[in-house]
Amino acid sequence: MITVVRDAWIVTQDPQRRILRGDVVVDGERIVSVGKEYKGTADKEIEAAGDIVMPGLINTHTHVAMAVMKGVVDDIPFPDFLKKVFSIDSGRTDKDIRIGTKIGCAEMIRSGTTTFVDLYYSEDVIAEAVAEAGIRGVLCWCVLDEEMTTQKGNPLHNCKRFYDGFKNKRKIMPGVGLQGVYVCNEETCRGAKEFSDEKGIPLTFHLSETRGEVNEHRKKTGKRPAEWLNDIGVLGGNVIAAHSAWMTMNEVRMMGAAGASISSCPVSNMKLATGGVAPIPEFQRYGANVTVGTDGSTTNNSLDLMAEMKVLGLLQKSSRWDPTVTKAQELLDFATLNGAKAIGMGDSLGSVEAGKYADLVILDGKSPNLRPLLPENTISNIVYSGSSSNVKTVMCQGDIVLENGRMNTIDEAEVLSESEEMWRSLCLR
Amino acid sequence: MITVVRDAWIVTQDPQRRILRGDVVVDGERIVSVGKEYKGTADKEIEAAGDIVMPGLINTHTHVAMAVMKGVVDDIPFPDFLKKVFSIDSGRTDKDIRIGTKIGCAEMIRSGTTTFVDLYYSEDVIAEAVAEAGIRGVLCWCVLDEEMTTQKGNPLHNCKRFYDGFKNKRKIMPGVGLQGVYVCNEETCRGAKEFSDEKGIPLTFHLSETRGEVNEHRKKTGKRPAEWLNDIGVLGGNVIAAHSAWMTMNEVRMMGAAGASISSCPVSNMKLATGGVAPIPEFQRYGANVTVGTDGSTTNNSLDLMAEMKVLGLLQKSSRWDPTVTKAQELLDFATLNGAKAIGMGDSLGSVEAGKYADLVILDGKSPNLRPLLPENTISNIVYSGSSSNVKTVMCQGDIVLENGRMNTIDEAEVLSESEEMWRSLCLR
Repeated sequence: MITVVRDAWIVTQDPQRRILRGDVVVDGERIVSVGKEYKGTADKEIEAAGDIVMPGLINTHTHVAMAVMKGVVDDIPFPDFLKKVFSIDSGRTDKDIRIGTKIGCAEMIRSGTTTFVDLYYSEDVIAEAVAEAGIRGVLCWCVLDEEMTTQKGNPLHNCKRFYDGFKNKRKIMPGVGLQGVYVCNEETCRGAKEFSDEKGIPLTFHLSETRGEVNEHRKKTGKRPAEWLNDIGVLGGNVIAAHSAWMTMNEVRMMGAAGASISSCPVSNMKLATGGVAPIPEFQRYGANVTVGTDGSTTNNSLDLMAEMKVLGLLQKSSRWDPTVTKAQELLDFATLNGAKAIGMGDSLGSVEAGKYADLVILDGKSPNLRPLLPENTISNIVYSGSSSNVKTVMCQGDIVLENGRMNTIDEAEVLSESEEMWRSLCLR
Repeated sequence: MITVVRDAWIVTQDPQRRILRGDVVVDGERIVSVGKEYKGTADKEIEAAGDIVMPGLINTHTHVAMAVMKGVVDDIPFPDFLKKVFSIDSGRTDKDIRIGTKIGCAEMIRSGTTTFVDLYYSEDVIAEAVAEAGIRGVLCWCVLDEEMTTQKGNPLHNCKRFYDGFKNKRKIMPGVGLQGVYVCNEETCRGAKEFSDEKGIPLTFHLSETRGEVNEHRKKTGKRPAEWLNDIGVLGGNVIAAHSAWMTMNEVRMMGAAGASISSCPVSNMKLATGGVAPIPEFQRYGANVTVGTDGSTTNNSLDLMAEMKVLGLLQKSSRWDPTVTKAQELLDFATLNGAKAIGMGDSLGSVEAGKYADLVILDGKSPNLRPLLPENTISNIVYSGSSSNVKTVMCQGDIVLENGRMNTIDEAEVLSESEEMWRSLCLR
């Protein structure tokens, strides 16, 4: 099956960051030609004259199933926030997790995300819903100390069982999650790391989101969280550390030396007012791989990576009084190439190049907020002027999941029709 | 002509901030009924079952004609930014101002803005383009010292001439602008204030955007800008002070005592990394009227008030380490009721109430990012989860300017077709 996207501005994200005008040809799951006019016959033609074609965005930190819990814990102090979220979370059912996941996937598709890293329990339920939505889920089962969890059975065993059951499912990559050092002892952390290394899959966790958790860990162990994780051998190239906001330079260097990825979640950090700002330029300087995440719907409250890229830049610039840090091209790299690298798919995702999976987003070039549009300002316009309103068509691994604003996979109306009932049963308890 | 919007969630923004489910009836330019089922016959029916109807948003600070200058001065130091913008600005023509204005209006319409306050020269050219776009322009001709301007003739005279020519134009409110204390001496400021008082029209200016301008003014006059403006009698209820980021408590109290409005432009301040954060909770406490502006397209680079409301909240919360400041309802108030008050139209704009002008925005209730949607989370969802992608239909003073995503007024394709040529001629010099 040959699909050709015609006459677009192609944001290749190739090593030279070229912007080409021309066709993108997809054969089955993969891109086979970029830029050259395609003269063969195609099974499907997508007319995209003057539109932007760019790589699908990669959201490296979320809890997708929480999309059904919007607008319930806003504008309140952090301890109250945690109490309410834990209370809601403890009452969840497979059904509302399934509905939340579908809503969240629809939101991500409509804002140009084709791959996301999830950290939650019940990833088996989530996986089925993600597969139906047709985007790529790196689903990291949440592991924590057995005495701290509401999961049935041992969380690491649950994670392993999930891996075995879903390792061959198309577009699903099972991964390992750790809730965070505050509920994960050394044995739990080592176990998770060993399993992720054995299988060659991502290991993600919350790291240094709040001052409180850093101080607590220092009291308990004498070390800051990243130092402690480094010393027990958990840091490594397959690690994705979400937030990483309250970090010392020593920790930054450790993250870089380990080749770890960080997932900065600026909107969540700002909305919760946790105070810390991830030291992005330092992470870049010392070789950590910087990516971007939305976090879940109770803290953001959207899953919109088009908006998140911009806010990441705004927070870095404003907090450092330096408009030159985290430039538009870097912000787009965080959400594409670096995201791909974080999940170990740098060779097959993150750019529009022949041989890579066809994860493509088409932005409507007729949108006034993207115009004037020229090669000179295309990257700036995507990152600083663009929004989810510009997302027209989305392809994941060759499958068109959104076409001219119409969802091809999940039945949104059906999913949404149940969402209010779910909210009431979960959030009004 | 009777238009009825059927069966929507109505975000009234009335004194009780009620959210009603039902119909909104418009007779000509004004709302005549809110909430009750309309049983009469209507000239036009808008089916909005489950959609959100809210007041049109009010952007209190922009330079709309700069929409044609996107993506040319990003990620560079502030002095370089100023140099480049001044250079571009000096080469502008009526034609590119017209095209820039139409692009900017299209962007604003598509993100739910029905009224904006503009500060620029050539407001006569801008006014014609705004009238064509069909939204409400509070167009403040930029006044500054004659020896500092590239305008032909005396800027205050130009402003007065503009007022005389456009004071009766529908949906156009001529106002007075001052560039800022750095190019406006006492005589200029007093002259602008007197004229605005005489005509009962808004007076807007840049105020304390950067540390540099505050320090310069103190060196020159011994006073901080707002203190100086207060002492020479310029502050007052018709004042809209953009940015107001580097302010002391003494200045905050003066602004409050004068009943002045401030237009906070968080995205612009953050992107330029000017360091200051407008002290919003203090402005609220001391009675200043807080509103929100996008600033122009070279600093933001969008004119999207749906995004700006959220970022305003994020910046306040994060910079103060307090998630409880600037709650969702307050953020929506800034962009509706307070914006109306700022331009002296508190009685006729800013809420969905009988007797007010029909400035309405319909958000698509079928958007997954707004769901689950219940009265309990509607305001949070609009502000924190919403985006311009949800804007479906927009009405300004009874005229439907956007209908189901289709622009009814300007010919976007025609306007956009010339935008790249304009960009090249302006920005590549």
